[in-house]
Amino acid sequence: MTSPTSSVADLAALRGADAELRAFASLLDDAAAAAQATRLEGPLAGQWIAVKDIFDTAQLPTGYGSPIYAGHQPASDAAIVGIIRRAGGLVIGKSETTEFAFLQPAPTLNPAAPGCTPGGSSAGSAAAVAAGMVPLAVGSQTGGSTIRPASYCGIVGFKPTFALLPTAGMKCFSWSLDTVGLFARTVGEVAAFARAASGTRIGELPARAPGQWVVGVPDSYPWGELTPSARQAMERGVAALRAAGVRVVSCALPSWGADAFAIHDTIQGWEAVRSLAHEMETASDKFSALLRDTLAGYARITDAEYAIAQAKAVHAQAAARHWFDGIDVLLTPSAPDEPPEGYASTGVSTFNRAWTLLGTPCVGVPGAVGVKGRPMGLQLVARPGEDALCLAAGAMLEAALRD
Amino acid sequence: MTSPTSSVADLAALRGADAELRAFASLLDDAAAAAQATRLEGPLAGQWIAVKDIFDTAQLPTGYGSPIYAGHQPASDAAIVGIIRRAGGLVIGKSETTEFAFLQPAPTLNPAAPGCTPGGSSAGSAAAVAAGMVPLAVGSQTGGSTIRPASYCGIVGFKPTFALLPTAGMKCFSWSLDTVGLFARTVGEVAAFARAASGTRIGELPARAPGQWVVGVPDSYPWGELTPSARQAMERGVAALRAAGVRVVSCALPSWGADAFAIHDTIQGWEAVRSLAHEMETASDKFSALLRDTLAGYARITDAEYAIAQAKAVHAQAAARHWFDGIDVLLTPSAPDEPPEGYASTGVSTFNRAWTLLGTPCVGVPGAVGVKGRPMGLQLVARPGEDALCLAAGAMLEAALRD
Repeated sequence: MTSPTSSVADLAALRGADAELRAFASLLDDAAAAAQATRLEGPLAGQWIAVKDIFDTAQLPTGYGSPIYAGHQPASDAAIVGIIRRAGGLVIGKSETTEFAFLQPAPTLNPAAPGCTPGGSSAGSAAAVAAGMVPLAVGSQTGGSTIRPASYCGIVGFKPTFALLPTAGMKCFSWSLDTVGLFARTVGEVAAFARAASGTRIGELPARAPGQWVVGVPDSYPWGELTPSARQAMERGVAALRAAGVRVVSCALPSWGADAFAIHDTIQGWEAVRSLAHEMETASDKFSALLRDTLAGYARITDAEYAIAQAKAVHAQAAARHWFDGIDVLLTPSAPDEPPEGYASTGVSTFNRAWTLLGTPCVGVPGAVGVKGRPMGLQLVARPGEDALCLAAGAMLEAALRD
Repeated sequence: MTSPTSSVADLAALRGADAELRAFASLLDDAAAAAQATRLEGPLAGQWIAVKDIFDTAQLPTGYGSPIYAGHQPASDAAIVGIIRRAGGLVIGKSETTEFAFLQPAPTLNPAAPGCTPGGSSAGSAAAVAAGMVPLAVGSQTGGSTIRPASYCGIVGFKPTFALLPTAGMKCFSWSLDTVGLFARTVGEVAAFARAASGTRIGELPARAPGQWVVGVPDSYPWGELTPSARQAMERGVAALRAAGVRVVSCALPSWGADAFAIHDTIQGWEAVRSLAHEMETASDKFSALLRDTLAGYARITDAEYAIAQAKAVHAQAAARHWFDGIDVLLTPSAPDEPPEGYASTGVSTFNRAWTLLGTPCVGVPGAVGVKGRPMGLQLVARPGEDALCLAAGAMLEAALRD
């Protein structure tokens, strides 16, 4: 872990930097930060941590990225905030989120790719870490909201096994998909954060020589062709792994993958309409047009369609364990492309949605670039529950890309 | 389902009855109830539903059974409330809960056993259904908080497979254990409620003749001996099943069960200290002595102890599927005894905690009595995901007990 930064001067500098970057929706004031800094102990002692503004905090307002909740002050902390505080971390501020962690962009810029979107929905968390404002940040992923912004901002993102970290006190969009995500600049830092946040349910990372790893690379994707940037990033990753002595093998994803997006969308949609039922009834005029139109479509999903999609998801979750037969982890692009220019869209979650649906751990490792030289991440995917293995593979890839 | 009751006169009657029973922490006023009653459609159309005051509601204050939150008004609805509203149900009031759904009793009386506790933590939900104030109610179960009060109040309680119904917007105690529970007077009603709330993920109940069922009865329990009341209730249940033509077989629970309570307590404790970190820091003087002392003990649970307990739970969840080899469901008492006299304790969750930890569906069926003639429920337990089978078995037992 990086050393604690907890002086009032540091906080003033952070505030100054954020005037341009807009990674934070709110920050602790000097007195509150100083008061808390004096009594921090534990595995995260003194670490400044940004928490996505989709998680409730009793000390900072929580707006869920929506004007409906401008200035909203929750009465208590989300469970992940309680975990961080008990582990000695200092929640220094709330990082910007897209509207309800869906698609309407946050105001945050991308410190690693000027003029480009930082991605979403965990835009502020990724940008704050990328800019060096905080060493660690909490985000979430329902489609690709952790791994994609990590890719666009050139940092590490980690989506643990589904439900390993608690979503209690997070504004729900889809309870079957919402997953806590973590950000740091290195795999070692994100792994230490994940181990602490999980109460060491994520065990020590296995120590393996490169020659002991078998990494699978899908020979094609049911979700479409690789872009030139994605192809370039994958070539860089495979070459680095092979140069390090890792065995890289080709593997086939099952045809189920072609249905994954429809299943994901049906589950997300049926649940979002119910999670946001109160807002739809009382404040839909304050939704973005994008969200309002999307929810209107989602409202037409029937119970029967939802039940079928859930049954297919359960079946796929069981079958997917065999996708890893003969390999340790899968390697894919973190995102389909470099961060797009402009701020009108946060990009797409092509390489993330199926894994979110399946509940697998995924780590996004920076170090490649796209055809325009902007950050491209590479994603390693492991079986559900194999979070430590996934992170160890991430550290191995990170080292290979640096060599 | 019972026919809708939605007149202002009915609401006045409910309010009058509740002055003595104290099942409700709050109720809609006449105008709000009338306004909502006009636009209800869907599978729960017009049903009055009590929701445990541990779930957030935007239209009614939500106190979590704690003076810390007296008069607290959430900004939005819990996901299960959104589900009910989208399905046409009318959340008529918030039912009393013990403090943070733990052990400090609620003020609610037991309409089925005067002078005795209604159980907990979902005291108000069980009592409101038992008294006929509402046909349906939502509760929760982290230890035995649904099946036990259903047993004590002589009604049906249903704990679905873990995470089948969403806990988003419920005040978290232990995110690995907290489960939404449902109450009704009959298995048919609770099954219809569960099917609607799950978006029909819980499918139609399988139609089977009694002779097609195999029910396992544990030959002993790792958690202790049966009380005379529990023995009497089990004898009644087994006799009724056999008389109906059901095959009842003896089976052995594995020795793991002896560790289940320690594992459950370690997981619950580590998580509760983090879920309630903010309240512990800022308002512990408003905790009951029982909760304060319990949390002080829980605060000593180490990360390593938690990680070991979670690993054992994951192992047991996989192994437990084999407990059902050769049988459809297990039959156990719902509670270790009749409802105890007085209101100082809500009873104990002896026959519930292991199933909550394992995530199995459980239905508690009334119809037996203890040695003092007070209600005793019988619990049927099925494999995770076999909620429809569990409910069908419950309907079969209910019919057998009536014959």
